[in-house]
Amino acid sequence: MAKAITLLESTRADHRAQADALLTALLPHAGRSFRLGISGVPGVGKSTFIEALGLHLIGQGHRVAVLTIDPSSTVSGGSILGDKTRMEKLSVNERAYIRPSPSSGTLGGVAEKTREAMLVCEAAGYDVVIVETVGVGQSETAVAGMTDMFVLMQLPNAGDDLQAIKKGVMELADLVVINKADLDADAATRAQAQITSALRLFGLHGHPSHAHHDETIWHPQVIQLSALHGVGVDAFWLAVTQFRQLQTGNGRLDARRQHQALAWMWERIDAGLKQAFRQDPRVRELLPLLTAEVSQGRMAASTAARNLLEVQAQRT
Amino acid sequence: MAKAITLLESTRADHRAQADALLTALLPHAGRSFRLGISGVPGVGKSTFIEALGLHLIGQGHRVAVLTIDPSSTVSGGSILGDKTRMEKLSVNERAYIRPSPSSGTLGGVAEKTREAMLVCEAAGYDVVIVETVGVGQSETAVAGMTDMFVLMQLPNAGDDLQAIKKGVMELADLVVINKADLDADAATRAQAQITSALRLFGLHGHPSHAHHDETIWHPQVIQLSALHGVGVDAFWLAVTQFRQLQTGNGRLDARRQHQALAWMWERIDAGLKQAFRQDPRVRELLPLLTAEVSQGRMAASTAARNLLEVQAQRT
Repeated sequence: MAKAITLLESTRADHRAQADALLTALLPHAGRSFRLGISGVPGVGKSTFIEALGLHLIGQGHRVAVLTIDPSSTVSGGSILGDKTRMEKLSVNERAYIRPSPSSGTLGGVAEKTREAMLVCEAAGYDVVIVETVGVGQSETAVAGMTDMFVLMQLPNAGDDLQAIKKGVMELADLVVINKADLDADAATRAQAQITSALRLFGLHGHPSHAHHDETIWHPQVIQLSALHGVGVDAFWLAVTQFRQLQTGNGRLDARRQHQALAWMWERIDAGLKQAFRQDPRVRELLPLLTAEVSQGRMAASTAARNLLEVQAQRT
Repeated sequence: MAKAITLLESTRADHRAQADALLTALLPHAGRSFRLGISGVPGVGKSTFIEALGLHLIGQGHRVAVLTIDPSSTVSGGSILGDKTRMEKLSVNERAYIRPSPSSGTLGGVAEKTREAMLVCEAAGYDVVIVETVGVGQSETAVAGMTDMFVLMQLPNAGDDLQAIKKGVMELADLVVINKADLDADAATRAQAQITSALRLFGLHGHPSHAHHDETIWHPQVIQLSALHGVGVDAFWLAVTQFRQLQTGNGRLDARRQHQALAWMWERIDAGLKQAFRQDPRVRELLPLLTAEVSQGRMAASTAARNLLEVQAQRT
C-alpha cells in the first residue's frame, strides 16, 4: 500500500502513466469507506481526538486510515502535522494506517495526492478514512471537497474570547465539536449556544424556513466532548452514523461524491490551463508589463486579459 | 456617457477594439470616486435607501451614479432590479445617473460591463458610484470585488426568525445596515447585537486578538436606520466617510483596488482559457464520455483532467 501511494506521489512523467493505470484498476474497489474530514487550530486536540476515535472504531471492528493535508508542507516542505508519534497507540495498531502529508508541492498537488491515497486505502479495505488538516481556509476547503462529512473542532473559550473562526470555514462544517469541554463546562455550553445561533443566522443550520422542519435534511450540529478523557467519542460517532444514514437515504451522499469528483476534474483542468498559459513564452514576455499597467491603473484589467489571451492563441 | 457604455456593452468584435481604446483613454480620468457596493434580499428596501442616500449626497454637492448587477438578467434576460421608476426623485435629478443591469450574458460578462461602466461614470465626474445587487452569493462577490466598501442590508426580524444570511456573504460585509428599524425597535436592537456577535465569532470583526484594538484597522459595524423616514442616512454616510479615511490612511484602499484589478484580470483570463478549452473540437468530443466515467466512478477525476488537457495540447 505504501508503495502504491509512493508511486501516486511521484512527479516523474513515466510514473504518472503507471499511476493513472493503477488508479483506474483500483477504482472499482474504492469508495466503500466513510470519508471524514477533521479540522481545527493547533492545540484544539486533533491528534488526541483522532487517536481516541480511531481506537474506538477499531474496537467496533472498523479499519481506520488517517491521511493528512498539512498546509505548511506546501510552503516550506516541513511538516507540523502527520507526525506518527502524535498518535502512539493508533500508529502501532495493525488495523490502523497513518500517512503523513505529502511533503511538498502546491496545495492543489498535495490535495490530489491525498485524494488518490484515499482511494488506495479504500481499495485496501479501510472502511473509515479520516482526512485531517490544520486550517488556513484553503486546506479546509480542499478537505471538505474530498470527504463525506466535514467536522470543525473548537475550544470552549466563551464570549469575546471565543477564538474567531476563519472566514469561509464555518460554512463547510457538517458538525462542530467543542473539545476539552471538561476544562470549563459553562464556557463549553455557552460556546455551543453561540455557535448554534451563528450557524442559524448565517443560514448554515439547514436551509431557510420550511426546510428547517424537514427531517430528511441534515442540520449541522454542535456537540461537546473531551477527547483526552474519552468522553463523548461514542456520541460523536453516533452523530456521524446518523449523518451517514440520512445522507445515504436522501441520495445526498452519492450526489456529493459525484459533485466532488466533477468539481475536482475541473479544478485540475483549470490548474493545468493556467500553468500552460503562464509557461507560454509570449505570455511570459508580456505578463510582467501588463501586470504593472493594470496595477498602476493605466490599463483596464479586461483589456489586459484580452491581450494576453490573444498572444497565447496566436501560437502556431 | 450612455453611448460610451453602450459601446462597452456591445458584443461585436470590432466594437471590442474601440471599447478597449476608449477604456485606456478614460482610465487616467477614472478612479476618483468612492465605490460603494450595496446588497440585500428583495424587500429589504434597497431602492428606498439608495434614493434617500443619493439625494442626501447630492444635497452635499456630490454627483451620484447608480449601477446595478441583476443576477436574474444573467439567467432570463429579464430584470427585477434597475428599473428607474423605483427611484423616481433620484432618476430625474441632473446630478444623478442611474443605469440598469446589462440585460443578458453570464455573471462574469455582466460584471465586466458594470466595471467598465463604473470607469465611464468616474471619468464623467460622478464622485460616488453605487453598485447595487440582489443576492445570490456570486453576484455579491462580484460587487464586493469591484467596490471600495461593501454594505449588506438586513431586516430587523429577531431570534430564530432573523432571515438567514447566504453562505459566504457576511464575510464580504464592511458594514451591515439594519433597515426598517422603525418597525420594531427591540427587534432591530436584538438583530444588531446578534449580527455583531456573529461577526466577531466568525473572525470578521477585524482580525484576531491584538488587531482588535488596532484603531488603524476597520472593524465591520452594524448600524440601524429607517430609509423610508430618512432616519440614520447621515449616520450611515458618516460611517462610510470614517471607513474611507481609515482605508485611505492605512493604504488599504489603494491595495484593495490593485488587488481587485489583478484578481479581475486573472478571472477573465481563467474564463477565456476555459472557454477556449470547452470549444476545442477534440475536447468537445471527449468531454461527455470522460464526464460520465468520472461521475460513475470508473475514472479518477485527475486522470480525466490529464487526458483532456493532453488532447487539447496535441492540436497542431
